[in-house]
Amino acid sequence: MKALVYAGIGKMTIEDRPKPEIEYPSDAIVKIVKTTICGSDLHILKGDVSTCAPGRILGHEGIGTIESVGAGVTTFKAGDRVLISCITSCGKCDYCRRGMYSHCTTGGWILGNEIDGTQAEYVRIPYAETSLYPIPQGADEEAMVMLSDILPTGFECGVLNGKVAPGSAVAIVGAGPVGLAALLTAQLYSPAEIIMIDLDDNRLAMARTFGATQIINSADGKAAEKVKTLTDGNGVDTAIEAVGVPATFELCQKLVGPGGIIANIGVHGQKVDLHLETLWSQNIAITTRLVDTVTTPMLLKTVLTGKIDATRLITHRFKLDQILEAYDAFMHAAETKALKVIIEND
Amino acid sequence: MKALVYAGIGKMTIEDRPKPEIEYPSDAIVKIVKTTICGSDLHILKGDVSTCAPGRILGHEGIGTIESVGAGVTTFKAGDRVLISCITSCGKCDYCRRGMYSHCTTGGWILGNEIDGTQAEYVRIPYAETSLYPIPQGADEEAMVMLSDILPTGFECGVLNGKVAPGSAVAIVGAGPVGLAALLTAQLYSPAEIIMIDLDDNRLAMARTFGATQIINSADGKAAEKVKTLTDGNGVDTAIEAVGVPATFELCQKLVGPGGIIANIGVHGQKVDLHLETLWSQNIAITTRLVDTVTTPMLLKTVLTGKIDATRLITHRFKLDQILEAYDAFMHAAETKALKVIIEND
Amino acid sequence: MKALVYAGIGKMTIEDRPKPEIEYPSDAIVKIVKTTICGSDLHILKGDVSTCAPGRILGHEGIGTIESVGAGVTTFKAGDRVLISCITSCGKCDYCRRGMYSHCTTGGWILGNEIDGTQAEYVRIPYAETSLYPIPQGADEEAMVMLSDILPTGFECGVLNGKVAPGSAVAIVGAGPVGLAALLTAQLYSPAEIIMIDLDDNRLAMARTFGATQIINSADGKAAEKVKTLTDGNGVDTAIEAVGVPATFELCQKLVGPGGIIANIGVHGQKVDLHLETLWSQNIAITTRLVDTVTTPMLLKTVLTGKIDATRLITHRFKLDQILEAYDAFMHAAETKALKVIIEND
Amino acid sequence: MKALVYAGIGKMTIEDRPKPEIEYPSDAIVKIVKTTICGSDLHILKGDVSTCAPGRILGHEGIGTIESVGAGVTTFKAGDRVLISCITSCGKCDYCRRGMYSHCTTGGWILGNEIDGTQAEYVRIPYAETSLYPIPQGADEEAMVMLSDILPTGFECGVLNGKVAPGSAVAIVGAGPVGLAALLTAQLYSPAEIIMIDLDDNRLAMARTFGATQIINSADGKAAEKVKTLTDGNGVDTAIEAVGVPATFELCQKLVGPGGIIANIGVHGQKVDLHLETLWSQNIAITTRLVDTVTTPMLLKTVLTGKIDATRLITHRFKLDQILEAYDAFMHAAETKALKVIIEND
Repeated sequence: MKALVYAGIGKMTIEDRPKPEIEYPSDAIVKIVKTTICGSDLHILKGDVSTCAPGRILGHEGIGTIESVGAGVTTFKAGDRVLISCITSCGKCDYCRRGMYSHCTTGGWILGNEIDGTQAEYVRIPYAETSLYPIPQGADEEAMVMLSDILPTGFECGVLNGKVAPGSAVAIVGAGPVGLAALLTAQLYSPAEIIMIDLDDNRLAMARTFGATQIINSADGKAAEKVKTLTDGNGVDTAIEAVGVPATFELCQKLVGPGGIIANIGVHGQKVDLHLETLWSQNIAITTRLVDTVTTPMLLKTVLTGKIDATRLITHRFKLDQILEAYDAFMHAAETKALKVIIEND
Repeated sequence: MKALVYAGIGKMTIEDRPKPEIEYPSDAIVKIVKTTICGSDLHILKGDVSTCAPGRILGHEGIGTIESVGAGVTTFKAGDRVLISCITSCGKCDYCRRGMYSHCTTGGWILGNEIDGTQAEYVRIPYAETSLYPIPQGADEEAMVMLSDILPTGFECGVLNGKVAPGSAVAIVGAGPVGLAALLTAQLYSPAEIIMIDLDDNRLAMARTFGATQIINSADGKAAEKVKTLTDGNGVDTAIEAVGVPATFELCQKLVGPGGIIANIGVHGQKVDLHLETLWSQNIAITTRLVDTVTTPMLLKTVLTGKIDATRLITHRFKLDQILEAYDAFMHAAETKALKVIIEND
Repeated sequence: MKALVYAGIGKMTIEDRPKPEIEYPSDAIVKIVKTTICGSDLHILKGDVSTCAPGRILGHEGIGTIESVGAGVTTFKAGDRVLISCITSCGKCDYCRRGMYSHCTTGGWILGNEIDGTQAEYVRIPYAETSLYPIPQGADEEAMVMLSDILPTGFECGVLNGKVAPGSAVAIVGAGPVGLAALLTAQLYSPAEIIMIDLDDNRLAMARTFGATQIINSADGKAAEKVKTLTDGNGVDTAIEAVGVPATFELCQKLVGPGGIIANIGVHGQKVDLHLETLWSQNIAITTRLVDTVTTPMLLKTVLTGKIDATRLITHRFKLDQILEAYDAFMHAAETKALKVIIEND
Repeated sequence: MKALVYAGIGKMTIEDRPKPEIEYPSDAIVKIVKTTICGSDLHILKGDVSTCAPGRILGHEGIGTIESVGAGVTTFKAGDRVLISCITSCGKCDYCRRGMYSHCTTGGWILGNEIDGTQAEYVRIPYAETSLYPIPQGADEEAMVMLSDILPTGFECGVLNGKVAPGSAVAIVGAGPVGLAALLTAQLYSPAEIIMIDLDDNRLAMARTFGATQIINSADGKAAEKVKTLTDGNGVDTAIEAVGVPATFELCQKLVGPGGIIANIGVHGQKVDLHLETLWSQNIAITTRLVDTVTTPMLLKTVLTGKIDATRLITHRFKLDQILEAYDAFMHAAETKALKVIIEND
């Protein structure tokens, strides 16, 4: 089968690989229908993800059709249409039972990282019964792809951790795909203000159409000041960090008001300064989270009933044999204006 | 009247001051019966608290007897025995209505800071009805003094923010008065382990008698390793920072396990490093808080019914005219083994 | 001044009464601008409310202008435009400090019940600083009247107690004003389904335009069965009782699924059957609540930012001297299709 | 093998039955070491449990040794010492993923009810990996038996649902085994008062030694009045119903104060009166629950670290071939003073 393979720092190739087979009774083999590319895939290509060795098939998102299941799988059968969670969950360990699937002792983020992933014709999914979700008839399949990772990430790490609430003031720093996913899902809780902050006017304009009530280009260094003005001097209740560099985390510390929360989503490569000399008395919280995908069933309902239009995140479409072009578009988002790209395996 | 007055960095004097008078209808004048000294008083003396000008009568803790009340005060009358909260709360502003009294727009920590405090024969208490609590007959008055600040601080900033729970694993870094207050109040939630970490063996031995299940002297740099061993490699559910320097906050980041909380109590004078490069995916929270004293009525019940023996925090007793000696004992705690000192105004 | 007075069971009169005066330092006198009529006013007229004696000026909703304030009031001054909360809150008692203003030991629902109310030219508001809210410039004043009682009642007793959540299934039994207020405010949390149940097709049609995803006329006795079908046999997550009679509470017990909540809003005049013989093992909760109006500041923001269009609840408008006609329209809602009526004091 | 078999209403026999075998890949066969008898077993004998057909081996509690496991079981192996949960949880269905194992779509309370149970030499446990817990070396095995059902039932249905908190006032109606389990586990949260109410002075005396702060024999009809006096007229924050008849549920409605919770544990055979005519405005909650055993890992830690002495619930010990005598003692608890009886399979 065709597969996109990580070939060492900065390199990837399309290879012909053997079709995966059932290895454990809880496995399923899924024929990929649609997949996509994630910022984490680019992190792997940069060499930032030490657990991912060259030779690995990339990808941890997608939908597909069950091809076969292991002896222990009773809730899925061949032919079922399924959504693949980016997080593999055994359902049995202490972390899984507490809803913290990201830290599953034998799962977590392993797809396209520690085991072969979804940017291929077929994929083996361990713990299939607790890592796949049935796709209801009539669902928009492109929208479903957004439920593998980007929507639960924005929602769990940003919106839920940030305790976005009716009437509250929210700032989202970073209007890339994950920031926009936070923006879309934040609206499930009807905050009064969602202030979107970025350096790219194009993305900010898009954020406005996604529901941001205010947009701020932070290039002039006055974003904190502007947010204070917009919030009667208080700062926001929730500051969502959706970039992952020291400067944006620094900004969040200036935006958050007393009693507020900084909900970090960004994947950070280095330590940051935490200003406890001022924040110690501000009754704030800072949260971190690798997405657990514990809210996937709930988000699925909000997408199915039209509360969220997930397809707004999709800007480009490719066939599986064009996946290198898809990566190219995704890596040059400033020019291509790419958010999420759909890759179809027909 | 006699009063202990801040006289500029490193200096304090006992002065004769006029007795305070009712200024607003919501005021009460309280004759001090017992007060105490707080680590924050020492911060003022070091010049760390810019809101506190020389000339200020220090002190924000204590119990006393109502001398007189303003026209708007209906729930207290002269002669009532009262507990003084270290936090002044108007009861009306948005923060007060949300239970965040520490950020009361016209109150907060003002006693012995922005207005004259309790280390004197008399004190004026603004918003008396929402900043004083009646002392029930028969209550141990020294225990009550511990309810002004130290117990709610350990409990709210450490235990509540840290979500200490039955069966959980807790580490407390710093076995000074506030760390020990966290230790005492953590036991209200029956955690399985409370690991106390400090550099002073005397304080650690005392922590053991206060209910610590494990004690660790961190001088050898192996505290994190030892905590990992004690928690089957997981780290703790709650790490309470009760010192306020970069090294102890750094240690907390090594102690906390996935899904855990670092609850900061320490008053920090400088920024710290936050290791988001590892913590971003660990589903942790970091909390800060200036005590709100919103749990004072609840803690009062736990003290009255013997769930907490607050008097264990008290090591020394002085008369008001010996207050400079009291400060001396408190400032040299390593030698005097002082925790909280009681100062009586007879 | 003109006032609508309760004159014993089934009787009311318009009388000329002395203008109220400041009695306590915390009072304010408010000139009424707009008021409305509540279902509770009709309960008083039926003689159901034993605390309300004949001679009482009715009404506990409205907006107005501060005429004068007591000596203890610092946050309002003559001329301020204010929203009157139906619940009087002292801000000082244990219940008020816990956010349960409805049980304020010297307040609660006293306006137009134990003390004279708002269906008059002027009203005295005790504890003005914690029972009035400033109306921002430019706010729609009719919408503001909906914040005195009906919106917080639907929201706190129905939506918050019922833990309405994104993706959840909600049934509201009763499409009168309070059921519709629950319907409007439930949408702040983006549930997947809101099923409205009533006996009146006109009200159900209106519920549809307010955002109900399904409507059911329960006249045929098949409502429970239909709800089960709509929820894949599970029943709803939240059943909101917005009528107050045994039959509707009975229906709610049939609608609620395992793990769900029955949130009672209805004012009940008699006991009901609770089917613990089936429900004991269903992991459900039943909640009751007299509105606390603790969410008024938050709801105000959602109204101001257009998340809720509160004016949709308003069907009729009258002048104060037509208030008997207003009552007549409100009491015959089946014919007049009245929801909330606005009464203006010009 | 020997087994205690339900033989129709009021009848049970000891029979020789074939040893169970693995039927599904997720099964385990467990050799019983110790088991016990539950009030639910008596309900079955009375014919109250329609899902349990004659011929069924009874019992849903116990500890044992793994004899063999199915092909899909990787976390247990022959020889492991295990605690059997009374609730069978698949770990995969929506209810299990939400922590509501009691409503597992293919599990729940099936042991000794819909499938053969633990009052035998061997038992087949479906979904072994999510329905068994490893017993740590050195654990008191009799204490472990209390973790199968009685402790989690008292804790989850009574203490957790009832939101018992530091400083709060709790009343427990019914001092039988489950009421006493609630009493033991309530102390994990350090309430100020735990008032135990029963008709049997012997059980009340035992409750006192278990930690009740007050005991009330309700035979004189004055229990509600006495509780009001003990709580300054407020009523309790948490009323735990641990009997299951209308009279005790009625009493709970009189005990609970504004803002309080009635947490039902009792298995009810008939409907009860709910006094919404008074309770509608009292801001209370009523909760029901079939134990989920979701807190078993946590309770295990509290037992292992000595926070709860579970063995205090054990009054009698029998061998498996004396099980009819054990039933006899358990059924005549008033005379035998039996709480929980241990049945050993040596």
